[in-house]
Amino acid sequence: MAVFSDRLIDKALTNNSRVIVGLDPTIERFPAYLKAQLKKEPTDEKLEDLLFEFNRAVIEATEKIAVAYKPQAAFYEQYGLAGIKALQRTITFMRVKGLLTIIDAKRNDIAHTAGAYAKAWIGASHPIFNTPNLWQSDAITINGYLGRDGIDPFLATNPNAGLFVLAKTSNPSSGELQDLALATGETVAEKMAALAQQWGEASIGKHGFSTIGIVVGATYPEFSTKLRNIAPNAPFLMPGIGAQGGSLDAIAAAAGKDGLGAYASSSRGVMYPFKADELVGSDWYVLAKEQIGEAAEELREAIQKKLN
Amino acid sequence: MAVFSDRLIDKALTNNSRVIVGLDPTIERFPAYLKAQLKKEPTDEKLEDLLFEFNRAVIEATEKIAVAYKPQAAFYEQYGLAGIKALQRTITFMRVKGLLTIIDAKRNDIAHTAGAYAKAWIGASHPIFNTPNLWQSDAITINGYLGRDGIDPFLATNPNAGLFVLAKTSNPSSGELQDLALATGETVAEKMAALAQQWGEASIGKHGFSTIGIVVGATYPEFSTKLRNIAPNAPFLMPGIGAQGGSLDAIAAAAGKDGLGAYASSSRGVMYPFKADELVGSDWYVLAKEQIGEAAEELREAIQKKLN
Repeated sequence: MAVFSDRLIDKALTNNSRVIVGLDPTIERFPAYLKAQLKKEPTDEKLEDLLFEFNRAVIEATEKIAVAYKPQAAFYEQYGLAGIKALQRTITFMRVKGLLTIIDAKRNDIAHTAGAYAKAWIGASHPIFNTPNLWQSDAITINGYLGRDGIDPFLATNPNAGLFVLAKTSNPSSGELQDLALATGETVAEKMAALAQQWGEASIGKHGFSTIGIVVGATYPEFSTKLRNIAPNAPFLMPGIGAQGGSLDAIAAAAGKDGLGAYASSSRGVMYPFKADELVGSDWYVLAKEQIGEAAEELREAIQKKLN
Repeated sequence: MAVFSDRLIDKALTNNSRVIVGLDPTIERFPAYLKAQLKKEPTDEKLEDLLFEFNRAVIEATEKIAVAYKPQAAFYEQYGLAGIKALQRTITFMRVKGLLTIIDAKRNDIAHTAGAYAKAWIGASHPIFNTPNLWQSDAITINGYLGRDGIDPFLATNPNAGLFVLAKTSNPSSGELQDLALATGETVAEKMAALAQQWGEASIGKHGFSTIGIVVGATYPEFSTKLRNIAPNAPFLMPGIGAQGGSLDAIAAAAGKDGLGAYASSSRGVMYPFKADELVGSDWYVLAKEQIGEAAEELREAIQKKLN
């Protein structure tokens, strides 16, 4: 199997896209039809089914557009076991379809524990039963605050999996620590990007990108070029487009000269373009898919235009 | 309900202890009897039962000694749904017993997503069904790299829950980022401790400690006093004792003048003091508990001695 960066870029070239679709289920925003179903049958089983069904609609609507899917672990954990089961079904569904999954888990810990997280999320098989690992994702987001020995166990568990290390995050208060200047003059975010570049230099694929990427918020365009220079081989996972007001220019600036270095992640903007209250019938599936597909296509086109 | 720091300190006074017992199940280290059971019946149900049963032994052996328990999420996630169900049973078991749970999850994200993590781990009820949240812990570990807006949703979801923000972690490479000096002269770890102190100043309990604590590895004694001065109101969660070679002097230095500010977390050292191969019979429960209880008591006494 190819390293993750090559699989990511091959998919980007096939789909002529730089869009990563977030999968962050929030029942409140679901089509009215689904919410009514849950009201009628308020059980864990039903909740699991609805979470999966909605994800399926998003995936089926965008599979020719998305470069990868990014389920955010928190949105599943909040629903307890029903959420975790829906996440497992979603990951398995994508694997069977040959789609790429980046689990947005931002895990981080000391080596011994990071090894357990690696087994959980990018390991190929269950550590006891040797059955396939139903949570196995192609890549995972990581917080690098603990340094290299929180990273190595992921590389050791699955050298072809992708890691995205948080460098400059998209949120308003990200600068509170990340923008501070070190004595050397570089900011904390820049240092983190430099570390990720260094950690990833041993695993560069045929397209020139490393299996270790970085997360860079599209809400801070001034960081795009700076961090691209610091981490020339890192694929950039760029959230913040849409609800958070990130800029497409930030994506273009980080994409590099061949335009293959930056990937825009959109969650709410692509998942919920419809008026939830209007989708009262069982035809929600068709109607929602149509609008979700259009939202993703619009974003794809807007980014591709910026790249040319 | 009192803020977490008060509940933690009340328990410390009752048990005359500063020991936090980690709950990091690793099947390989379980008593031979349990491993044989799983070999005979290699199912998810059996795995879940064994994980819970072993935790139960650890908890029953130490409940008069432990100030709180710290299940590490990774060690459950690695076993898939069976692990997550065992974690849920463990948390519920402790809640019913009135024991304190610190979920060691090191979660971190932007506000919208941090809110979902908060619901998952410290929320009182299921966000849809309003049933009790079976994962509800009394406190959670957090990575503060994203700044204040990754913290606020936790405070908003449950102002009495405790947060422990990673400042100086116990692992060998923690200095790669955390020891770097900022332009202001302080290190990244010191800055993080200062931020945690600032975030927690609005929620100080009767014992003078905030609901926001920090994680400080006992493996770096030179940080204990420095960080105590920077974050005078933060309870310190101090891992690194035992397998990682941390020092009891580091705990004592961070405890402050009333000796109530620092809590030593030990996982492997307390959980696995026995020779796993010798515990082949169903009496493992009695024999393991005895040794686990002794290991915890030894650590408790050693720390109390340092405090006097």
